[in-house]
Amino acid sequence: MRKKLKVAVIGGGSSYTPELIEGFIKRYQEFPIDELYLVDIEAGREKLKTVGALAVRMIEKAGLPIELHMTFDRREAIKDAAFVTTQIRVGMLDARSRDEKIPLRYGLLGQETTGAGGFAKALRTIPVILDICKDIEEVSPHAFLLNFTNPAGIVTEAVTKYTKVKTIGLCNLPIGTKMLVAKMLGVDVSKVEIEMAGINHLNWTTKVWVEGIEKTGEVLDIISGVKGVSVKNIPDIEWEREFIQSVGMIPCSYLRYYYMKDKMLEKQLQDLETKGTRADEVKKVEEELFALYQDPFLNRKPPQLEKRGGAYYSEAAVNLMTSIYNNKKDIQIVNVKNNGILSCLPDDVSVEVNCVIDSEGATPLQLKTAALPPHIRGLLQVVKAYEELTVEAAVHGDYQAGMQALTIHPLIGSAELAKRVFSDILNGNKEFLPQFSRYKD
Amino acid sequence: MRKKLKVAVIGGGSSYTPELIEGFIKRYQEFPIDELYLVDIEAGREKLKTVGALAVRMIEKAGLPIELHMTFDRREAIKDAAFVTTQIRVGMLDARSRDEKIPLRYGLLGQETTGAGGFAKALRTIPVILDICKDIEEVSPHAFLLNFTNPAGIVTEAVTKYTKVKTIGLCNLPIGTKMLVAKMLGVDVSKVEIEMAGINHLNWTTKVWVEGIEKTGEVLDIISGVKGVSVKNIPDIEWEREFIQSVGMIPCSYLRYYYMKDKMLEKQLQDLETKGTRADEVKKVEEELFALYQDPFLNRKPPQLEKRGGAYYSEAAVNLMTSIYNNKKDIQIVNVKNNGILSCLPDDVSVEVNCVIDSEGATPLQLKTAALPPHIRGLLQVVKAYEELTVEAAVHGDYQAGMQALTIHPLIGSAELAKRVFSDILNGNKEFLPQFSRYKD
Amino acid sequence: MRKKLKVAVIGGGSSYTPELIEGFIKRYQEFPIDELYLVDIEAGREKLKTVGALAVRMIEKAGLPIELHMTFDRREAIKDAAFVTTQIRVGMLDARSRDEKIPLRYGLLGQETTGAGGFAKALRTIPVILDICKDIEEVSPHAFLLNFTNPAGIVTEAVTKYTKVKTIGLCNLPIGTKMLVAKMLGVDVSKVEIEMAGINHLNWTTKVWVEGIEKTGEVLDIISGVKGVSVKNIPDIEWEREFIQSVGMIPCSYLRYYYMKDKMLEKQLQDLETKGTRADEVKKVEEELFALYQDPFLNRKPPQLEKRGGAYYSEAAVNLMTSIYNNKKDIQIVNVKNNGILSCLPDDVSVEVNCVIDSEGATPLQLKTAALPPHIRGLLQVVKAYEELTVEAAVHGDYQAGMQALTIHPLIGSAELAKRVFSDILNGNKEFLPQFSRYKD
Amino acid sequence: MRKKLKVAVIGGGSSYTPELIEGFIKRYQEFPIDELYLVDIEAGREKLKTVGALAVRMIEKAGLPIELHMTFDRREAIKDAAFVTTQIRVGMLDARSRDEKIPLRYGLLGQETTGAGGFAKALRTIPVILDICKDIEEVSPHAFLLNFTNPAGIVTEAVTKYTKVKTIGLCNLPIGTKMLVAKMLGVDVSKVEIEMAGINHLNWTTKVWVEGIEKTGEVLDIISGVKGVSVKNIPDIEWEREFIQSVGMIPCSYLRYYYMKDKMLEKQLQDLETKGTRADEVKKVEEELFALYQDPFLNRKPPQLEKRGGAYYSEAAVNLMTSIYNNKKDIQIVNVKNNGILSCLPDDVSVEVNCVIDSEGATPLQLKTAALPPHIRGLLQVVKAYEELTVEAAVHGDYQAGMQALTIHPLIGSAELAKRVFSDILNGNKEFLPQFSRYKD
Repeated sequence: MRKKLKVAVIGGGSSYTPELIEGFIKRYQEFPIDELYLVDIEAGREKLKTVGALAVRMIEKAGLPIELHMTFDRREAIKDAAFVTTQIRVGMLDARSRDEKIPLRYGLLGQETTGAGGFAKALRTIPVILDICKDIEEVSPHAFLLNFTNPAGIVTEAVTKYTKVKTIGLCNLPIGTKMLVAKMLGVDVSKVEIEMAGINHLNWTTKVWVEGIEKTGEVLDIISGVKGVSVKNIPDIEWEREFIQSVGMIPCSYLRYYYMKDKMLEKQLQDLETKGTRADEVKKVEEELFALYQDPFLNRKPPQLEKRGGAYYSEAAVNLMTSIYNNKKDIQIVNVKNNGILSCLPDDVSVEVNCVIDSEGATPLQLKTAALPPHIRGLLQVVKAYEELTVEAAVHGDYQAGMQALTIHPLIGSAELAKRVFSDILNGNKEFLPQFSRYKD
Repeated sequence: MRKKLKVAVIGGGSSYTPELIEGFIKRYQEFPIDELYLVDIEAGREKLKTVGALAVRMIEKAGLPIELHMTFDRREAIKDAAFVTTQIRVGMLDARSRDEKIPLRYGLLGQETTGAGGFAKALRTIPVILDICKDIEEVSPHAFLLNFTNPAGIVTEAVTKYTKVKTIGLCNLPIGTKMLVAKMLGVDVSKVEIEMAGINHLNWTTKVWVEGIEKTGEVLDIISGVKGVSVKNIPDIEWEREFIQSVGMIPCSYLRYYYMKDKMLEKQLQDLETKGTRADEVKKVEEELFALYQDPFLNRKPPQLEKRGGAYYSEAAVNLMTSIYNNKKDIQIVNVKNNGILSCLPDDVSVEVNCVIDSEGATPLQLKTAALPPHIRGLLQVVKAYEELTVEAAVHGDYQAGMQALTIHPLIGSAELAKRVFSDILNGNKEFLPQFSRYKD
Repeated sequence: MRKKLKVAVIGGGSSYTPELIEGFIKRYQEFPIDELYLVDIEAGREKLKTVGALAVRMIEKAGLPIELHMTFDRREAIKDAAFVTTQIRVGMLDARSRDEKIPLRYGLLGQETTGAGGFAKALRTIPVILDICKDIEEVSPHAFLLNFTNPAGIVTEAVTKYTKVKTIGLCNLPIGTKMLVAKMLGVDVSKVEIEMAGINHLNWTTKVWVEGIEKTGEVLDIISGVKGVSVKNIPDIEWEREFIQSVGMIPCSYLRYYYMKDKMLEKQLQDLETKGTRADEVKKVEEELFALYQDPFLNRKPPQLEKRGGAYYSEAAVNLMTSIYNNKKDIQIVNVKNNGILSCLPDDVSVEVNCVIDSEGATPLQLKTAALPPHIRGLLQVVKAYEELTVEAAVHGDYQAGMQALTIHPLIGSAELAKRVFSDILNGNKEFLPQFSRYKD
Repeated sequence: MRKKLKVAVIGGGSSYTPELIEGFIKRYQEFPIDELYLVDIEAGREKLKTVGALAVRMIEKAGLPIELHMTFDRREAIKDAAFVTTQIRVGMLDARSRDEKIPLRYGLLGQETTGAGGFAKALRTIPVILDICKDIEEVSPHAFLLNFTNPAGIVTEAVTKYTKVKTIGLCNLPIGTKMLVAKMLGVDVSKVEIEMAGINHLNWTTKVWVEGIEKTGEVLDIISGVKGVSVKNIPDIEWEREFIQSVGMIPCSYLRYYYMKDKMLEKQLQDLETKGTRADEVKKVEEELFALYQDPFLNRKPPQLEKRGGAYYSEAAVNLMTSIYNNKKDIQIVNVKNNGILSCLPDDVSVEVNCVIDSEGATPLQLKTAALPPHIRGLLQVVKAYEELTVEAAVHGDYQAGMQALTIHPLIGSAELAKRVFSDILNGNKEFLPQFSRYKD
């Protein structure tokens, strides 16, 4: 008799959940969930209720025998689950808003996952994720933790360094890149393969193939000097042709923050004046979405959800679970422990690379290019060093590690600014940073 | 019969030469030079004549049997020399002035060896040094090339990567640090030992001992929040206590450019208004020096030379030659091929580390601290990647490598600025950058 | 219009060819060969004629539009081929016989691919393969060289170190192991996956799964103390239970030569008395086969071919070509350049590991076990060092490298024996070792 | 006021002690011992008494203010000692005799430190040394443990892996090699320097210099084909010229066991017939020595001690202590944690290499030859893997690790023999191997 297939979604009250439900419904034949647990914290009771009710309607409409449970008891949800996914936001959108605004005070980029904003998010998020891991270790040690919570690479690294939980970090950027490349080249996405190398939100598409024929050069030509080649939540400033040719690979959208720092900052400051931070925008979208979700006749994912960002999120997540469940051995780009795949980075850090997915998880593939060129390597190494320090700061409440993390980050690069920003982060997040309680003023 | 000991000084007409002569005179017993060749280019004929005449007077006064030769024939000077030293300045102080000013146009630090200024200097200098190496390979293949020409680390790397010449890169910073530490701790310098790790002008004193007892913590305490702990040519802005403790090691003076970028830039902009660039200052000092040198009664190093910067330069140079010549096996901090000593950097790059000096040159010692912490490692790796790209740009006239070198440098960090600065550098140095002739507009 | 698919088989007159033809016929739908060239040397004219005629009858019977060419002009065969395969035997079975007998004179194991015998074969084979590579570089630089010629790992390493040819080394051991494991576990082979680590003919099956569930322990239990778990050409001496448990992985059959050296030697010496060497046996089988092949009514692979050894050889070969041709991205275990996948071995050596096969060739997968345990690592390292030295000896006629290769080989382990065996090898193979002409007595 | 300088000698009743005392007396000016503790176990009471009394007479004769203490209380001896040295022999010469005889039963080399004999010795010794380390950690955490107890490399590795004690492993082979080389070249030893690379009792002198001029080739020529170039306790079989040239470095005497396995075995078997094992010889020498030591008028090291083997032992030991005590920064060849100095070996193993000795201990120097050639590397790697497994077996009583250690050792190389030898070792050493109590039959 087949063992029951149980999935637990931590942060189940998220506005993203309907997308995930849609994914589960579409792929039910391959991935026959028996029990789906949506868990949330008390503060999210209303949202969970709303989203859960919509999920029930969606499943009913599909006529599938998926049992849906809503709960505030995390251990109950995790117990015997095959997969645990996290889509939590510690401190909710207010915290994100602060993460985006604090750096801007000092003329630094304010972004949810990158730079000082991502640092703050990591400090808040990692302790909660490690708590979840403790539960998994105790009540479902064989479960896979599929982590979508940003900063996904840093969080994955904390989990692999400090717990025994089998984990894979997942981002929608790789699948989004593949979709974008397919569109650019005018071919169906099923014919496109890409190789990515780097770490979460700091990676390069090193090669592109269409039906096995390399097309990297064509894509580099296409993306030079045009708009429309960025992901939703990153300003769409075009790459300069000469520069992109000197990179020789396709930088991910987040690399605009590094390569076009000044223009990106300018854009953020303008936006702050005119429409507020991205958090402010998202808040509005979320309100609208929850208003829609409450409609008792709604029984499908509303199209407005697409404005939310996180496109292909559900696809990436369900793909991953399906491939593990079915021992598929297809290739997906996910965040895992390095173990020598990127030889320029330490063995115990997280990297985002092409992996074969099977019943044991994700096994990285050797890069087709034997060694990353110095310009990729250098940037990767310094940002990874920042990430390692951030993990230490988040796990141990290590002020000195945090200070150095911010100081060496290429988007900060100054001990003075680091100190001020860090101080504001600690003060603005008091309730979410118990590990730093002794440093608050 | 002892083989004649011959030394060739390339750039012999430099204002530094009297200091070197003084060093040779003081250490004659240990390092009995038979023939000293001062070589220069035609454009430096007058200076060579002046400096050479002073050198002759100094040697005569000392009553030593050193034969002094002045020549414009480099190969004649190098032939059968045991040591070749370089103290050249391609493009002279005018070029330095440009190196310091161009970056400031774009709000970037303008410095002779660091950032965009150091990049420009490397592009001008490396082809000339490789030419010298060709001569050495042909007419004195067993000679040691002791390179003092900045950026010394990058130049040394170019030589080890592209020639067969035995080379050691030398800087006065390590010996200066030791002197400074002795002064701080109020002990004689002979009792002080330090361990340094890093690359030229980007290194950290990882440990300090007095008579074998570690005193690193004491020094960290002393340097926090005080002035007077920087080398001559770097603004003396004090380290913030909390920050320096989080570094945990003693940063070299040049690290102020990285850790206190904004304050350092502000200072440079002020100075530019009030007293011009450092090149402008040095020009005046040089004029004064050469006026003094012309005095036919002067037969010693004039004390004014000390204002010139480059303190301990002669000491460092003569120490190194003496230890090689006498197979001394003492420890000096010099620039050599890495070969795994700093495991976070590639094997074939140059590093500045503690070495045992003997008749075969410099052999690095393993670091007492097994692995550099992430905050040191990250910064070191990204700057080294910049250096590797700079070597490629300088040797091959590779525009794309140069573009990427500047883009990832922590003091630039922007593709746009990189492009503009690079363009100004190429235009401002046309006559000195034949390797880039096809890129000039 | 589809480009013509051309395959060149070097050593086409081999008795194995009918098996390969059968494979091509079976997989024609997926791998539609247009032109198949069988090439051989003049000395093999008769065999080529016989085998070629049989191949023609087989293709005709299958009714497929494959053009078969027989030629002695290697470059004509290689020109524009998509795949070149090699199944050559330099010096033919007489040489193999010598390889097996010479070591036995000194109480050393005599084996075609392992120890001194494999060393001799490598010396004879590598120069010929490098010649073939020169042709490929000139007339078909995009062709894949699929090398089946033993010692396959050493030959592959010589090709990757000394040519630009895209090459993959192939052995039937991995596929044979999978078949054997399936049989042991009583499941269909399609449900079995294995992970192998090591180098050709010295590898361990680190993990076994059936439908994604790990079964390594079960297999270890099964193979302890029983017969029937060795490949055809290796004496079937059973593994001792306690020992196999301490290995913790499944050793390949060739590891019997290392782990049970004395028993294996004893067996060889007995066999030598009673039935001669394996070469002698094979000679008889070959004679029988060619007699059969000459039957003008034979139009299929005769079942007697299976006695020949090399089971699954055709399957392995055609699988590999089909996966490359169709960009399949399935996993096969082949010999490729290491590049860090086995971190205990140098980057530039060949290893035999799980790879994803696609249109660009074979990309290794990270091992599921992060690091090989010391008992695996140590043996692997010393035998790989032997292989590296053998490549140098074979390519450069380097006597000293050869001497050291034999001395450190675990099956020789003595400078005295190494010297004697090497001398006999050089004397016995004079005509096939031009690179050692100056060492012969 | 100077802190008292205390030294504890564990195994103080050894026949070697007078040599050590002589060394302390000779070097008193540089190394002014205040308190010298000779410690032994109850079973060695008589020997300790005899040796201690001789030591007192020697010190009195020298007229030095060294306080000599004899004790059976190890912690008292260790407390506040600056240096702890070990010269213990667990199981005494009877155990050594077994170690030498057991392997010979199976046609394997029987040697105290190498192969199965060294393995047995490691199993007996490591638990005792780790016990001593526990004492050091508790009562003298800053003490240096200078370990002379064989197998010195394996013991040092166990200490660095499983304790926090600062340790250096010491052997008289490097100093003996230097002496021998000086004699061969007819120069004073003070003019000779050597570079050694490898692990204890398996190393190669990679380079030899006289007054800074390389003489490696000369030494290779000299040692070819002559007798008289082995250490005392290893049969003096001459190196074959062609072979030694192909090594390209000077193998240590113990490498005869690897390179001339058969001849060495033959010699051992002969000796066993005629004069017994080396342990038997040593027993007689020891008896003679202790008879001499009892002479109440003897107040110097008797010359007969030189027959004992272990020449230069005292010199090596006192050199090391003196250099640490005086922060000398001279170069000595000792056993330390690898940490990347031999890049072909793991970081956490022990290696025997050139080190700078100062107040903090031993800091390895980078090899002058960047990478060890494959024939050195391969042998080193497999024997190191054996050593790593032996440490695990010794510390944890891990039978499987022990089984594999013996199997892969180049002087055993067979699972069958490994099993039998291991069984005999366990049975013959029951009382000394508590960690294996569950495996004894």
